[in-house]
Amino acid sequence: MGRLGDVTPGLPIITLLTDFGVADYFVGAVKGAILSRNRAVTLVDISHDVPAHDVESAAFTLLAVYKSFPRGTINLVVVDPGVGSERRPIVVQAAGQLFVGPDNGIFSYVYESDPAAKVFEITNQKYFVESPSPTFHGRDLFGPVAAMLSLGVQVETVGPAVAEPVRLRPLAPEVYPDGSIKGRVIQIDRFGNCITNIRRNDVESPAKVIVKKQTISDFRNYFAEKKRSGPFAIWGSAGFLELAVLNGSAAKLLNLSTGAEVRVVSS
Amino acid sequence: MGRLGDVTPGLPIITLLTDFGVADYFVGAVKGAILSRNRAVTLVDISHDVPAHDVESAAFTLLAVYKSFPRGTINLVVVDPGVGSERRPIVVQAAGQLFVGPDNGIFSYVYESDPAAKVFEITNQKYFVESPSPTFHGRDLFGPVAAMLSLGVQVETVGPAVAEPVRLRPLAPEVYPDGSIKGRVIQIDRFGNCITNIRRNDVESPAKVIVKKQTISDFRNYFAEKKRSGPFAIWGSAGFLELAVLNGSAAKLLNLSTGAEVRVVSS
Amino acid sequence: MGRLGDVTPGLPIITLLTDFGVADYFVGAVKGAILSRNRAVTLVDISHDVPAHDVESAAFTLLAVYKSFPRGTINLVVVDPGVGSERRPIVVQAAGQLFVGPDNGIFSYVYESDPAAKVFEITNQKYFVESPSPTFHGRDLFGPVAAMLSLGVQVETVGPAVAEPVRLRPLAPEVYPDGSIKGRVIQIDRFGNCITNIRRNDVESPAKVIVKKQTISDFRNYFAEKKRSGPFAIWGSAGFLELAVLNGSAAKLLNLSTGAEVRVVSS
Repeated sequence: MGRLGDVTPGLPIITLLTDFGVADYFVGAVKGAILSRNRAVTLVDISHDVPAHDVESAAFTLLAVYKSFPRGTINLVVVDPGVGSERRPIVVQAAGQLFVGPDNGIFSYVYESDPAAKVFEITNQKYFVESPSPTFHGRDLFGPVAAMLSLGVQVETVGPAVAEPVRLRPLAPEVYPDGSIKGRVIQIDRFGNCITNIRRNDVESPAKVIVKKQTISDFRNYFAEKKRSGPFAIWGSAGFLELAVLNGSAAKLLNLSTGAEVRVVSS
Repeated sequence: MGRLGDVTPGLPIITLLTDFGVADYFVGAVKGAILSRNRAVTLVDISHDVPAHDVESAAFTLLAVYKSFPRGTINLVVVDPGVGSERRPIVVQAAGQLFVGPDNGIFSYVYESDPAAKVFEITNQKYFVESPSPTFHGRDLFGPVAAMLSLGVQVETVGPAVAEPVRLRPLAPEVYPDGSIKGRVIQIDRFGNCITNIRRNDVESPAKVIVKKQTISDFRNYFAEKKRSGPFAIWGSAGFLELAVLNGSAAKLLNLSTGAEVRVVSS
Repeated sequence: MGRLGDVTPGLPIITLLTDFGVADYFVGAVKGAILSRNRAVTLVDISHDVPAHDVESAAFTLLAVYKSFPRGTINLVVVDPGVGSERRPIVVQAAGQLFVGPDNGIFSYVYESDPAAKVFEITNQKYFVESPSPTFHGRDLFGPVAAMLSLGVQVETVGPAVAEPVRLRPLAPEVYPDGSIKGRVIQIDRFGNCITNIRRNDVESPAKVIVKKQTISDFRNYFAEKKRSGPFAIWGSAGFLELAVLNGSAAKLLNLSTGAEVRVVSS
C-alpha cells in the first residue's frame, strides 16, 4: 500500500489544474520546480483558466477529467486563495491516483467518488523548499511534493493522516419525494453549454427541465440531432445533464450563469 | 505500406488541433485517453482556440503547420459540429503523416497538397471505447485511435477506404484571363495580420492589392522594413499573401474580417 | 567550457516564451521545427501571451522564471518586432543555462543577474534553414538553433562573440540620498497584482508606498492575512514588491498600468 504499483517506472504523469492563467510566469515556474526534481515526468495541462479563486469550479473540472488518466497519475491542483495562511497542504490517495493541493475543498468530489480516499497533510519539509514563498506554494511546495511522489516516495511519508478534510457542499442535487429534482448549473463550457450537477440516474425518464420559468422538454442524444430549434437537454460527456442549443450558447439564450437553479420534473 | 517507417520507435508525436478552448476539461480528457493507451507519446498542442465550429479555419491552420513536423507525425484534428451524427470518423494518410478526425472537410487542404492521400473510415471498434459519448468523440474515439496508430497499428485496419471524403471549396483563389486574382481573407492572426488564400506563384509581379476600395501597392519583405506608414502587403511565413501594418492591426485599420474579398491586379 | 555538463544526456529541456498567442499555428510550427531535429527534447511553455512586441515584459517574465529550471535548460525567447531587419539573432550563455532569441534587449535582466554572461551572434547557417522566412525566425532560425544546442553542439560554434548586446534600461529603481525609492510597475498579473521593479534589499523597513497620490502602509506576508481591507504591499514570489488587494484587482482599484511610478519612503 502507498507505493502505486501501476506507475510505469520512469514514465509518471503529473497533470496540472490551476487558476494561474497562462500570461504570467506561474505555470512555467511550477513546471521548472517539478522538472528540476524529476526530468522523466510527463506534464499535462488540464487547465490554467479556472476562474480566479473558484474552488468549486476546479473541483468539478477535476472530477470530469481525472478518470481519463491511468492509474498512478499524480494530479496537481492549485486554486488556493488561502495560500500562506493556516490552510493545510495535502495529498489525497484515491481511485488509484494521487492528488496534491490545498485542503480547501478542492478534492471534495474525489472523496465522494471514492469513499476509501486517504488524506495526508504535507508536513515533511525535506520534500519541499526550505522557505517557501508565502504567496506561491505551487512552485515551492505542491510542485516539489508532486515531483517527489513521481519519483516513488511513499505517500505516507509526506505527513500525518487527515481525518476530516475540508469539503464543499455535496455535488448531488436535492431529490424530492415526488421524484422532482433541484440542481444547479455548475459550469458553463466554452460553447455556452450549461453543465448541471444532475446525473442520469438521478432522473426518471421521460422528464422536462425548468430553468428561469422556461420549460425544456426536448431531450437529445447528440448536438447535431435534427429537431426543432431552441434549447434542449442532453446527457453530457462528463455524465451530467447539460442544457444546450445548436450552434449557439445556451448560457446566453437562457440567461444562465453558474449557480442558477435547474429543476427536473417528470412530464 | 501502412506502417510508417519514419516513426522513431517509442517516440511518436501526436499533435492536437481543436476548438475545445483551454478553460474546460476537454483537452485534458483527450490527452488522458491517449496516454492511457501509450505513455511514450509526445503530445504537441497546435491550438485549441480555433473559432467554435469553424472547420475552414482549422483546415487552414493545419495546412500552415503540418509540414513543420517530421514524417510519421499523427495529427489529431477535432472541430466537429456534427459529433454524434452520421458524419464519418476518418484517418487520412498523406505526406508521410497521419491525420485523425471527422470527415467534414477539415482535411481538404491536405488532400490538395498531396493528391495521393488515402482516406479510411474508422469502423474497427476494438480501437476505441465501447460506447463512445455521442458528444465527445475526441476523448472516446479520435484520441484512442490516434493512440493506437502511435503504437504502430496498420492504418488500413481502422476500416474501409473512403473514395470521396467531404471537401471544402478549394483553397485556390479565382484567376481571371487578364491575370487579376480574386481571393479572400482566410485567417486573421493575433497581430491583426490578414492572411489571404493567395500564393506567391498565383501573382504576377509587380502588383497591387485592392480591399474594400482601398489600394495597397506597398509590397514588403519583412515587417520592420523602413518605408512610409500605412498598410502593406507581404508574403507571409505560411506561403500566402498577408496584409499588415507596422506595430498595429491591419484587420482593424482596413476593417477586414475573414471571408473579405481581396483582389490582386497587375499595376 | 561551452558543453553544458549538467544537461542530462537525452533529456534536454527547451522552454518557450513568445508573444505569438495560442490561436494561430506559430507555436506549433516552432515546436515542429525543434522536434524535427531532436525528438527527445522536453518542451515547456512559459507563456505565449506576452503583450505583442513588449520586449520589457518578456524580459521580466524570463527573469522571474528561469531560475526555477535546472542547469542546462535552453530558453527560447521570441518577442521580435524587428524580425527580418538587421537586428542580430543571438545565443546567451549565463547562469548555467542557454538563451536563444533576438538581440533586442530581451535578455537584459539575465545579463544583470549574471555579469559573466557570454553572448554569441548566430551566423552559422548550417544550424538553421537555408532561406529563413523574413517574418518567422522562431520557426526557421531560433527554434532550429535551440534544437541543435539541445543535441549538444558547442555554443561557440553558432557564431562570433558579441561584445555589446542591446540592453533595456536597468531594472533597478532609482534610490535617493534620503533612502526613498522611485520605481515602476513592471507587470500586472492575472489576479491584478501590480509587480514593481523594487527588490526587498532596496528598501529600508518599515516603509510606505505611494502610487498616484495614494499611500499604502499595510505590508503583509501573504494574501489571505486577516487585516483591514484595501490595498496592501507584499513581497511577491519573484522577489519584487507587489501591490495587491484581497480577492480583487489592485490594478483596477488603484488605476495602475505598467510603467506607473511607485515611490517607497521610510515611514
